[in-house]
Amino acid sequence: MQFHHHGYVSGDPRTLPAAGVGLNRPDELPDEVDVLIVGTGPAGITLAAQLSQFAQVTTRIVEQRPGRLEVGQADGIQARSVETFQAFGFANRIIEEAYRITEMAFWKPDAEQPQNIVRTAVAPDDPAGVSEFPHLIVNQARVQDYFLEFMANSPTRNRPDYGWEFVGLDVAEEGEYPVAVTLRRTAGDDVGSERVVRAKYVVGGDGARSKVRESIGRKLVGDQAFHAWGVMDVLADTDFPDIRRKCAIQSHDGGSILHIPREGNHLFRMYVDLGEVSHDDDGKIRLTTQEEVERRANQILHPYTLSVRHVAWRSVYEVGHRVTDHFDDVPAEQRGTRDPRVFIMGDACHTHSAKAGQGMNVSIQDGFNLGWKLGHVLEGRAPASLLETYSAERQVIAQNLIDFDRQWSTLMAARPEELTDPEELERFYVQTAEFPAGFMTQYQPSMIVGESARQDLAPGVPLGKRFRSHPVHRVCDGNPVQLGHHARADGRWRIYVFADASASAEESAARELGDWLAQSPDSPLATTPRDLDGDAWFDVKVVYPHSHLEVDLMRVPPVFLPRTGPFQVVDFEKVYAVDPGDDIFDAYGIGADGAVIVVRPDQYVANILPLDARDELAAFFAGATLRA
Amino acid sequence: MQFHHHGYVSGDPRTLPAAGVGLNRPDELPDEVDVLIVGTGPAGITLAAQLSQFAQVTTRIVEQRPGRLEVGQADGIQARSVETFQAFGFANRIIEEAYRITEMAFWKPDAEQPQNIVRTAVAPDDPAGVSEFPHLIVNQARVQDYFLEFMANSPTRNRPDYGWEFVGLDVAEEGEYPVAVTLRRTAGDDVGSERVVRAKYVVGGDGARSKVRESIGRKLVGDQAFHAWGVMDVLADTDFPDIRRKCAIQSHDGGSILHIPREGNHLFRMYVDLGEVSHDDDGKIRLTTQEEVERRANQILHPYTLSVRHVAWRSVYEVGHRVTDHFDDVPAEQRGTRDPRVFIMGDACHTHSAKAGQGMNVSIQDGFNLGWKLGHVLEGRAPASLLETYSAERQVIAQNLIDFDRQWSTLMAARPEELTDPEELERFYVQTAEFPAGFMTQYQPSMIVGESARQDLAPGVPLGKRFRSHPVHRVCDGNPVQLGHHARADGRWRIYVFADASASAEESAARELGDWLAQSPDSPLATTPRDLDGDAWFDVKVVYPHSHLEVDLMRVPPVFLPRTGPFQVVDFEKVYAVDPGDDIFDAYGIGADGAVIVVRPDQYVANILPLDARDELAAFFAGATLRA
Repeated sequence: MQFHHHGYVSGDPRTLPAAGVGLNRPDELPDEVDVLIVGTGPAGITLAAQLSQFAQVTTRIVEQRPGRLEVGQADGIQARSVETFQAFGFANRIIEEAYRITEMAFWKPDAEQPQNIVRTAVAPDDPAGVSEFPHLIVNQARVQDYFLEFMANSPTRNRPDYGWEFVGLDVAEEGEYPVAVTLRRTAGDDVGSERVVRAKYVVGGDGARSKVRESIGRKLVGDQAFHAWGVMDVLADTDFPDIRRKCAIQSHDGGSILHIPREGNHLFRMYVDLGEVSHDDDGKIRLTTQEEVERRANQILHPYTLSVRHVAWRSVYEVGHRVTDHFDDVPAEQRGTRDPRVFIMGDACHTHSAKAGQGMNVSIQDGFNLGWKLGHVLEGRAPASLLETYSAERQVIAQNLIDFDRQWSTLMAARPEELTDPEELERFYVQTAEFPAGFMTQYQPSMIVGESARQDLAPGVPLGKRFRSHPVHRVCDGNPVQLGHHARADGRWRIYVFADASASAEESAARELGDWLAQSPDSPLATTPRDLDGDAWFDVKVVYPHSHLEVDLMRVPPVFLPRTGPFQVVDFEKVYAVDPGDDIFDAYGIGADGAVIVVRPDQYVANILPLDARDELAAFFAGATLRA
Repeated sequence: MQFHHHGYVSGDPRTLPAAGVGLNRPDELPDEVDVLIVGTGPAGITLAAQLSQFAQVTTRIVEQRPGRLEVGQADGIQARSVETFQAFGFANRIIEEAYRITEMAFWKPDAEQPQNIVRTAVAPDDPAGVSEFPHLIVNQARVQDYFLEFMANSPTRNRPDYGWEFVGLDVAEEGEYPVAVTLRRTAGDDVGSERVVRAKYVVGGDGARSKVRESIGRKLVGDQAFHAWGVMDVLADTDFPDIRRKCAIQSHDGGSILHIPREGNHLFRMYVDLGEVSHDDDGKIRLTTQEEVERRANQILHPYTLSVRHVAWRSVYEVGHRVTDHFDDVPAEQRGTRDPRVFIMGDACHTHSAKAGQGMNVSIQDGFNLGWKLGHVLEGRAPASLLETYSAERQVIAQNLIDFDRQWSTLMAARPEELTDPEELERFYVQTAEFPAGFMTQYQPSMIVGESARQDLAPGVPLGKRFRSHPVHRVCDGNPVQLGHHARADGRWRIYVFADASASAEESAARELGDWLAQSPDSPLATTPRDLDGDAWFDVKVVYPHSHLEVDLMRVPPVFLPRTGPFQVVDFEKVYAVDPGDDIFDAYGIGADGAVIVVRPDQYVANILPLDARDELAAFFAGATLRA
């Protein structure tokens, strides 16, 4: 954590100094805003939190509830989300209070006494060690609390405008604030009254029944037949020995339970299969009583019993697998000719079963993907065409999610005799572990993923996938740190220079690149306004293939030792060396010639180039950024 | 973290439900309190935080400042303190914002050009891995903030009474509230007005010039000659390459600097030696200007230079090595015949140089030691004679600290030619690393450290030292956890049962001990009031010498699976198995017969016994506890 460079910080350093639109933020929703977000679910709140770091951008987020979410439905937090929370500064705190999944048990009918279930396997949750962060279970309300806190402590001091319902919108063809949004009060003395807010951009994170989606004419398409589940968060007395372990339980009569222990040691969630429901059921399945769900759970768990002592939350719901074909308001025939003004995210774009624990996580990444793009366009750092990449990148992820979830749900709901072999479910679980953990996302080449990237220079760093962190030693103080954890959700591009082996000498490719980055008019850093710190838009780091005491800090090129803050003191924390016990060059497959790796503000690998490919680097950023 | 068992917790689970005296806590200081603490420094605030967990005990803590500390002097946080913070729930957060010391550099005059300093060695800070927690630097004000937050979130909802100065006290020979304390307002409309608060116990954490100490006739004794230091927390421009590394710097002219990087990456602290000062200097040394301190620092750092850009805090101070002979109000001739009513802690008992980074840490342990003892006596869980162990245990620690600090300060201030060999300073640093890390404290046998303990049963767990944590696997969910981190600062005794190798069979010594603990009228657990949860006063855990999937959770004795909360649901998190990669039985040296280890509420090892030594266990607790 970096602070004190603007003067002594006596209080919590997580509270940043107010700046820009945060200096005189009006309590009331203004008539004109840069970005209006509808809905404070995981997608909306992530987007708002990201935008709260752009001090010159006025973002407001409206929510129809009168206040904070008390009990949310989602609870699965994949490791990719925890990586994201790290960038927002609250990973450790949420890990502390969450339930951690390290393994999953599979229960099946006993071959000899099929009326009894028996445990047939326990599989590790993350056999490949895909992330340094764990897989968690914690209520959605807490995730949102942490994002809200981050927003409140940001330079823009943003917070939600509760008690406003989205009614409709119109997009004008021109004007500075072309989107006119009608909102209606749902709380307070003026409940029912309407007003219009004009915005440059509007984003709908307003759930499966999204009115923003409806207003731009997009539709969810997919399954007609739905599957019904009884879900309950309860405290109970039981002799089932895996009550604190995640389980897939299949009984001889085709019933199944997905069992999820919850945070706090005592609570757990059970998804009890209530079978397929046709569309003409007309919601009758939702009348299934708690007693009926408990009775069904006890049938499936036989010979074990479950006696519920307290119901914290319950629901009966039906869900299909549906996805929207496009995530913004530009009609197919106009793409490339006009820029999007309205976007949809999260459940407004994709609905699916809760059983793979994906929904909240994909929504968070929707928000993280769109946030920096809106910020860069609104601050004039990038062309408006950047916004087209949101739908292009995220729609395919949603489609993959639907396909995965359909397979998983089908397997979970299958009777034992319908499976090709008894281990099919756990084999699928283990083989596909990287998907539900959130690491199969790989963005394709575009204006922000390099077409000419040299994957061979760093085979351990897949282009278009999230930049995986690795241990290094910080040169200035010898601290063992995670290279990736220095990156925060501050909207900056990152340029990681992995130095060539000759780097400590005066003549080296890393030094030449460093000097070019600092001095050339073609360098991306030259787009940074002169009144900002030199590292305000681009965070440039160097990793030397030496041990930390071998690096002479005072001879490192100045671009890696930027001066920041009103006192212009040097930031020494951007110069790294290898952890001799776990060499990052080996892990990434980077050779003696080094490499430069460009990482997007949302942590995805954007480009991989040789140290001397200055023209390619300049050309890449010429496409992704604007020059004043 | 455990919660939800009293019903669903929607908000931050760190905020406990209000209970006992926290339900109707008066804003105004009451006329009668159980414990009155004077001073919100590290000792007082730790004591208050610990007592805030005792729901029936009214504790108030008065502070002469009108509000929160803004900039404190202390900044060194040894690993033992971070372990303590873990028990109070904020270790991870303070680690995030602190500077971490992993190594220390030694700079000396260059043999060939003595006017220049050169780096002669870099030593690891914790070569032996004495704790799983790091050594940190962070401002005292932040440590106090976290303790304040813990107190505010505790069942008693306690917070300081700011703006009250201690004037004096009288101890009556009898009465329920025998100590009458006169306080004077230092802030507000009624500044200067006085009032009397009556207390059962009074604790002075009011610093080196303690008036509480004076009121009980105790004196600091020790050095007459003082050493002077110029200390500054600054932002600066420098070419000194170790500006982000802790350094001991000695120049050819006998000058020395202790250099400490500070949290936040940019700030650092320098202690610049200003030499010995005789008593008749009469404080003149304190007039030394900032310019003079900077000039002296530049002399010592030659050939490097330092240009200060911003001074966050500075001071010139003299300090001697002094300690009080006894830490409570009982005169020597009355010891054993009457119980103490007034205690002193922290700097009120021991003053010394800041250079070994000890002061705040020893003070925190003073508070942690006294807190549970006052709580137990006030709740009727222990005899009042328990309070005599506070001075008996802590005075010797203070004396050891003074001795250590005198050696370290002398070495730091020595000219190179005065040392027996050039490496004397770094050799002393490395050899004594365990002391400044806080782990040399070893309490001697007493009513709370077993006389008949069997150290041979667990040679890796030294009796009287703090119980060192070790990795284990939790049986219920297979989570890799630290055994010691489950223990919180909740005032409970801990009984760790390390099961015998036959433990999974029906007949085992661990099972017999478990049944005895649950059922025998001689069991310490029998002292727990029936209206409380069975584990309210004693936290009983078991560790099996097997892998976690080999333990049949449903056959574990019930004492290790207690039912808690209004719904009486089972707490499954007290049953552990070994981490096969790092066996806790090997680490602790526990053999196939197992052992029982008793740990005090302040984390020190109180007893080690065979599993069948039920009489000895009963006898030990008969001395340390009371039966209703």
